[in-house]
Amino acid sequence: MKHSEKKNADQENGSMEHIISLAKRRGFIFPGSDIYGGLSGTWDWGPLGVALKNNIKKLWWSRFVEARDDMFGVDAAILMNQKVWNATGHVANFSDPLVECTKCKKRFRADQLGSGDADVKSDAAGSGGKKCPDCGGALSEPKQFNMMFKTNIGAAQDDASVVYLRPETAQGMFVNFKNILDSLHPKLPFGMAQIGKAFRNEIAPRDFIFRTREFEQMEIEYFVHEKNWSEQFEIWRKEMHAWMLSLGLDAAKIHELDVPAEDLAHYSKKTIDFEYEFPFGKKELYGLAYRTDFDLKNHSEASRVDLSYFDEETKERFVPHVIEPTFGLDRTVLAVLCEAYCEDAMGSEVASGEKAEKTETRVFLKLPAHLAPVKVAVFPLLKNKPALVEKAREVFAEIRKVAPNAIFDDNGNIGKRYRRQDEIGTPFCVTIDFDTIEKDGTVTLRDRDTGSQKRIEISKLISEIS
Amino acid sequence: MKHSEKKNADQENGSMEHIISLAKRRGFIFPGSDIYGGLSGTWDWGPLGVALKNNIKKLWWSRFVEARDDMFGVDAAILMNQKVWNATGHVANFSDPLVECTKCKKRFRADQLGSGDADVKSDAAGSGGKKCPDCGGALSEPKQFNMMFKTNIGAAQDDASVVYLRPETAQGMFVNFKNILDSLHPKLPFGMAQIGKAFRNEIAPRDFIFRTREFEQMEIEYFVHEKNWSEQFEIWRKEMHAWMLSLGLDAAKIHELDVPAEDLAHYSKKTIDFEYEFPFGKKELYGLAYRTDFDLKNHSEASRVDLSYFDEETKERFVPHVIEPTFGLDRTVLAVLCEAYCEDAMGSEVASGEKAEKTETRVFLKLPAHLAPVKVAVFPLLKNKPALVEKAREVFAEIRKVAPNAIFDDNGNIGKRYRRQDEIGTPFCVTIDFDTIEKDGTVTLRDRDTGSQKRIEISKLISEIS
Repeated sequence: MKHSEKKNADQENGSMEHIISLAKRRGFIFPGSDIYGGLSGTWDWGPLGVALKNNIKKLWWSRFVEARDDMFGVDAAILMNQKVWNATGHVANFSDPLVECTKCKKRFRADQLGSGDADVKSDAAGSGGKKCPDCGGALSEPKQFNMMFKTNIGAAQDDASVVYLRPETAQGMFVNFKNILDSLHPKLPFGMAQIGKAFRNEIAPRDFIFRTREFEQMEIEYFVHEKNWSEQFEIWRKEMHAWMLSLGLDAAKIHELDVPAEDLAHYSKKTIDFEYEFPFGKKELYGLAYRTDFDLKNHSEASRVDLSYFDEETKERFVPHVIEPTFGLDRTVLAVLCEAYCEDAMGSEVASGEKAEKTETRVFLKLPAHLAPVKVAVFPLLKNKPALVEKAREVFAEIRKVAPNAIFDDNGNIGKRYRRQDEIGTPFCVTIDFDTIEKDGTVTLRDRDTGSQKRIEISKLISEIS
Repeated sequence: MKHSEKKNADQENGSMEHIISLAKRRGFIFPGSDIYGGLSGTWDWGPLGVALKNNIKKLWWSRFVEARDDMFGVDAAILMNQKVWNATGHVANFSDPLVECTKCKKRFRADQLGSGDADVKSDAAGSGGKKCPDCGGALSEPKQFNMMFKTNIGAAQDDASVVYLRPETAQGMFVNFKNILDSLHPKLPFGMAQIGKAFRNEIAPRDFIFRTREFEQMEIEYFVHEKNWSEQFEIWRKEMHAWMLSLGLDAAKIHELDVPAEDLAHYSKKTIDFEYEFPFGKKELYGLAYRTDFDLKNHSEASRVDLSYFDEETKERFVPHVIEPTFGLDRTVLAVLCEAYCEDAMGSEVASGEKAEKTETRVFLKLPAHLAPVKVAVFPLLKNKPALVEKAREVFAEIRKVAPNAIFDDNGNIGKRYRRQDEIGTPFCVTIDFDTIEKDGTVTLRDRDTGSQKRIEISKLISEIS
């Protein structure tokens, strides 16, 4: 196998079109409601995508919840009492300014008119006013448009029955703070953690699974004494950085943005955005916010339920302050896919007994082995030789015992099978050929990233995989 | 330790009030939006509940997806294009008949008026007509009330922007049938599997997490050639039964109801309901339906996308038929909790060096070890003896390597700690006492169900746990 002209990954390989195409072609991620023309801002996860996403969720949960004594996992409902969102200010303030075309009635984000966004165009020739990018009609003054999805619960369709799909998982934790105190009696500092869906009616969903209307968050609310916030903030900053490296993200592509005071959300005294160099620009991947005691105090006032904490040792009663590390799950998957996506020009790659194929571009996902949806693929060299197939099935059964996410493939020639596994990021391919049966009981183990092959004893292979 | 007068589990121990109380008290399941007075039909999962639920999800996914070559996992969006629900008939027909009070405007389910449901009462003395159970006003004629939650997507609030929260996970699989064919090229028979949330605006949510407005399904759509449906149906019937036994459910409490032809849903030619003897009656736990080619044909017609399958061997092109095993996740947890809930009268239970407590009722969850949120709890006998605590921490660290879901507890006396672990269903408690340090390096291992204790070497304990 020859690898030549390794191209610059940022320049040519990372293009979003290629990644989106691969994601659909190989069963990672499909457009939502696909056969009906889609539903903007929604995506459906295919078998490979679910496996990748589940691996990330498991890693996160085991690292931040199961391995710690100070973390309490919860899973709160998506539908929450409207009083929650009145208390947080979401009903009043979680909105974007929209303008409406007085002619065709379409709406556009006022703050993006003229910004070059695909949906809206400024009327450069106009006398200060903007025109509808669709029909050219006059646009209204901006009005606030709430980004929460609203529905009604119960039989009545009135104001009292209004509920919102949660726009963030955070509040599902704050409203259960007292339940955790009462049932688990934790001592400060401690955290609550949740993985779950949230919904925002984005006007302009874009960049694949980066900005969507239905998304999944992995989020922690970490409760501390006010005097310790800064120390705990720093601990979490490092924790988040270490997590990103554990995903195989390139440290050089990760940047910390200390959000300037004037840009901070009203509840935060300090926020760091972790930005990642996506192919479409340097964008927010994660956030770390010091939320003070804003949420617990607000909910305590609005619900008239005491949300203070009593410290048995100091005999002090107070409302804890909160450090909030937020990890967007979809963005995590996207960063991992972007980091892993590679192309290289390659020559022929053959196992014994096959003809060389012509030189072509090889696409492969350089996924870390612990995240790859499929860890090992097992092939018989030829599909029409029962002895090979039988032996390959036998080896596959052994491998599966130690690697449940192994697959068997005898479809197409061996080169095509390698291409398929390269595209889904399978780190190891094992091929059973005539030497396996007739000679020495060894198999060919191929490395995804280098394409190099070596012969290895079956027993040694199994122990290496496990 | 003395156990006496083992009570009849069905008669006294299984009461829902006790289970709901335990679930809240110990951090399994809390009412949704609790501090705001709740939100009817929603529940939030606490740390123990999430752990139990996750264990069940993992078990299901590994059994029905990862261990099989013929199953493809997906995770489709909750928000789907309204055309999906027009095609399935949900927009037109997924409704309950409601009557409205002409005076106070409250609505009630017409089919439950006079049924003894807590919400509605018939006017037995009236001349045929029913009256409002709240204010006594006259009731309207029944009208159809759609059970799907409706919201709007995008900036406009018109008919075109209407979307529904999916009332079932099934359609998220049918609309991706072609994506699976195109990306994974599976051969019949094969299935798609999904774990995810669904939403139904139930008029009368009830029985704890049995009938809720937001719930989680584990569902499979298994695609077969029409001629094989009956054979595959039978295979899945047995698979579902085996699954229920793997959860530790009592076979004697599981009943199969062959749904009579006149009660079948319009899409089904045969359905079996698996019923379980809950404390509130024999109710549907799971369903197994033969859905024919109804869904794929409907979607194919409505979307004008070909959803047929081509059999390479027989050269036959046809629309596959579907066997659908559906597993309600919340109901699974509820059945597991009901099955596990036990009370017994007990005498004293002491480890060496503690005084006997007075006779009391012991509550414990007899959860199967592979489902228990906490597998092992480790205690120092006394919390104020540093040598004991240190040794216990050391043993805990060792155990945690092989059982990540182990916990350490030195809070309160040893009897109280046993009670706590009993109530959350921890199968094994390990106590470190002075003999551990001073004599023989053994610890006390206590069995949850019998309360019996034995001394065991630490190394032997570790290998037994792993």
